[in-house]
Amino acid sequence: MTELAISLDMHSKTPLYEQIYDYIREEIRRRQILPGERLPSSRALSSYLQVSRSTVDLAYEQLVSEGYVESVPYRGYFACEMEELYHIDGMTPARQTVSEEEKPAWRWDFAVSGIALGGFPYNPWKKISREVLNDASPELFRLGDPQGEPGLREAIANYLHHARGVSCTPSQIIVGAGNDYLLMLLTVIFGEKKKIAMENPTYRSAFRCFQSLGHEICPVPMDDAGMERKALEASGAQIAYVMPAHQFPVGTVMPMKRRLSLLAWAAREEGRYLLEDDYDSEFRYKGKPIPALQGFDNAGRVIYLGTFSRAIAPSIRVSYMVLPERLMPLYRQRGRNFSATVSRTDQKILEVFLRDGYFERHLNRMRALYKTKHDLLLRRLRTFQGVCTVSGEHAGVHVLLKLTNGMTGEQAVALAAKAGIRVYGMKEYYIGESQARDDTVLLGYAAMPEEEIPQACEELLKAWTV
Amino acid sequence: MTELAISLDMHSKTPLYEQIYDYIREEIRRRQILPGERLPSSRALSSYLQVSRSTVDLAYEQLVSEGYVESVPYRGYFACEMEELYHIDGMTPARQTVSEEEKPAWRWDFAVSGIALGGFPYNPWKKISREVLNDASPELFRLGDPQGEPGLREAIANYLHHARGVSCTPSQIIVGAGNDYLLMLLTVIFGEKKKIAMENPTYRSAFRCFQSLGHEICPVPMDDAGMERKALEASGAQIAYVMPAHQFPVGTVMPMKRRLSLLAWAAREEGRYLLEDDYDSEFRYKGKPIPALQGFDNAGRVIYLGTFSRAIAPSIRVSYMVLPERLMPLYRQRGRNFSATVSRTDQKILEVFLRDGYFERHLNRMRALYKTKHDLLLRRLRTFQGVCTVSGEHAGVHVLLKLTNGMTGEQAVALAAKAGIRVYGMKEYYIGESQARDDTVLLGYAAMPEEEIPQACEELLKAWTV
Repeated sequence: MTELAISLDMHSKTPLYEQIYDYIREEIRRRQILPGERLPSSRALSSYLQVSRSTVDLAYEQLVSEGYVESVPYRGYFACEMEELYHIDGMTPARQTVSEEEKPAWRWDFAVSGIALGGFPYNPWKKISREVLNDASPELFRLGDPQGEPGLREAIANYLHHARGVSCTPSQIIVGAGNDYLLMLLTVIFGEKKKIAMENPTYRSAFRCFQSLGHEICPVPMDDAGMERKALEASGAQIAYVMPAHQFPVGTVMPMKRRLSLLAWAAREEGRYLLEDDYDSEFRYKGKPIPALQGFDNAGRVIYLGTFSRAIAPSIRVSYMVLPERLMPLYRQRGRNFSATVSRTDQKILEVFLRDGYFERHLNRMRALYKTKHDLLLRRLRTFQGVCTVSGEHAGVHVLLKLTNGMTGEQAVALAAKAGIRVYGMKEYYIGESQARDDTVLLGYAAMPEEEIPQACEELLKAWTV
Repeated sequence: MTELAISLDMHSKTPLYEQIYDYIREEIRRRQILPGERLPSSRALSSYLQVSRSTVDLAYEQLVSEGYVESVPYRGYFACEMEELYHIDGMTPARQTVSEEEKPAWRWDFAVSGIALGGFPYNPWKKISREVLNDASPELFRLGDPQGEPGLREAIANYLHHARGVSCTPSQIIVGAGNDYLLMLLTVIFGEKKKIAMENPTYRSAFRCFQSLGHEICPVPMDDAGMERKALEASGAQIAYVMPAHQFPVGTVMPMKRRLSLLAWAAREEGRYLLEDDYDSEFRYKGKPIPALQGFDNAGRVIYLGTFSRAIAPSIRVSYMVLPERLMPLYRQRGRNFSATVSRTDQKILEVFLRDGYFERHLNRMRALYKTKHDLLLRRLRTFQGVCTVSGEHAGVHVLLKLTNGMTGEQAVALAAKAGIRVYGMKEYYIGESQARDDTVLLGYAAMPEEEIPQACEELLKAWTV
């Protein structure tokens, strides 16, 4: 019988059984006790260690359940054979602090994907959060509907109908944690890689997601009305990803004629779809918003993507997709196997926010806020005559500056950077080698503090007129 | 020049320009104004309608921006050619109420995936939510790190180290909205379909996700220690999905020997991985929890999956995965293109919940709660002698009843159902046609109200001894 030189610490916080367990386990690991070797009986060990029999039994039970020791009826306990010897670390995790992304110190950043951070509707959101948690039935903590809560989908359908002319029932809506996730889910629903046409230039983030998902991207050139129909036809794509309300980054609002032409393209062959990304349709400064492409689709060919990232905050992670009826059987077959990705309490908060008019008031407030910045920026940009011309200013939260002083976009970005001002070259948004002239930069104003716009513009002009 | 019989309603809430816009748009849609037809000049129309010129201009501008009308310099406005005539609905959404799933009226449901719903930590959660929103800097509403907030990952790494013996840095942790989402993301990271071995019987939800993601499933039989190594080897699988802490549904705790054997299997060939789903390791009623398989992996072959669904609530949608270092380059290449799926405020709340000891206290409370139900249930099941024997009772929140009175599992489920009691046949958890005898049913007790366990057991016994 193996002698076990266990020195128990009666005053330790570690229970006695665990000290015994630890000791024997270490001995087996370090091959001080060899496989097949017999361990003392629990009676013998308890009397040797002067502890109760049940303490030793507990230690042995743990060793048996973890497979270090085998209990052979009527014979006793034996150390197990470990098929392969693993060096087992002391299990100290390397505590490495997560490194913060290094941020260059910009004086001003005309970020195109920004939102006005102070604009988050703190007060109603806090109030509704409190109410939702106070009224929460235990039911609210069960797993919810994979498509999203019925109440939230009802509120979204209602909003989409009135604000965007989207024609759908709540049963066609799928709520998900962000557009990127929904593109992933859509890939699962399709069950295969597709050829996806994208306007060139386009939204890089969607492009990267499609690429990571293994789809083949067909960049399609744009004219003044948006994606060119003939080039789309020639690309052989099955899906066309478009932003009819406000193309990013060019700012084109797709005219009805082109919309109908694209719908006709989609309807012509089985398996063709338009993926309409309506990412910032809420913000438009002239005329009333143009209804979504989806509302004109009678052939069930539009997949509509919407998000609360722009209108509320990117960090809340709630988007939605409206599938045409013809895709619902595939969703039910493949997509419904994936549980919801937005917490039920967050869905409930958002439902109340939409249903009780908070969202509408919030949007009006944000529109006014962005309009003020927009007007101020445009007034200041008038002084840039001879340097650049402005376009894309009727919608969204960025404008395009086309350089007219001979500078390339790259040079303009570099000169601005030297002055501590971050602007964005149109070049970055092209897929592949672009034939387009590099003569345009983008200025986003959503996240720019209003009072700093004049000085930022002044210094930008200075940087560009050296 | 076209005559426009617009009757304006000066008292309507609809602005005048919109009434003009609506009228002309409808006329073009209904082909009352034909493509190429010239519209009245804005001067002529404004004088005809007795409205200001700018009102008409606004209507025309909207029509032009939507592509119904073209403006030809020095010539005027012309109705556009619509390539294909679409019937445009009145855009009234079919308001279909989302149908509630029909639930049979069970008197008692021994649900195996349930949790004690009253157990949600309302008070700390509400308190922390309030604090997080009160202290929120605007920064909290920006898009966060795709991997999850550094603070939360730090807290998870710390918890995993101490409670589960998982050895990792926060930089290997990826936070996501549920296990299903993480399996989707993992598929994107791999970039290809894999052959995945699953214990048979197994967790159906993971099985269905893998299937929907296009992976090939290799069901591998189990022995008392878990997945059989030889059968795994023979299956040709690249990935083995295992639940070493507590196999679902069988309840096996995988002994160390088998763990090391599986680790050796994975290390033997490039591209092999163990996917360790540690779904309910928090609940164990005898001895101390067995460290995760991940902690013994020196070859970087274990992908560890954990969730707060069981420990806090399924509806909060927060899971995490620990990738081995060798997979991080692939994650950075493909996976980081997908934005985070958990809202930043929720991540912050959870971080505080973990960091400040609330989670530990909550777990202790839940363990005690489940232990009480567990003990009560087991006491009552003693009266089932001659009907069935109990196993799998040392961990998790369900037990297995092996029928010894000649009934099949199917019969037992049906007889229970007749008495209004829902129990679950082991048969449901097998992949494909199983060779196993249908002689076992599962009883979950997490969601069962404690005070009802005695009567539910009594009636169950009655139903089975008719």
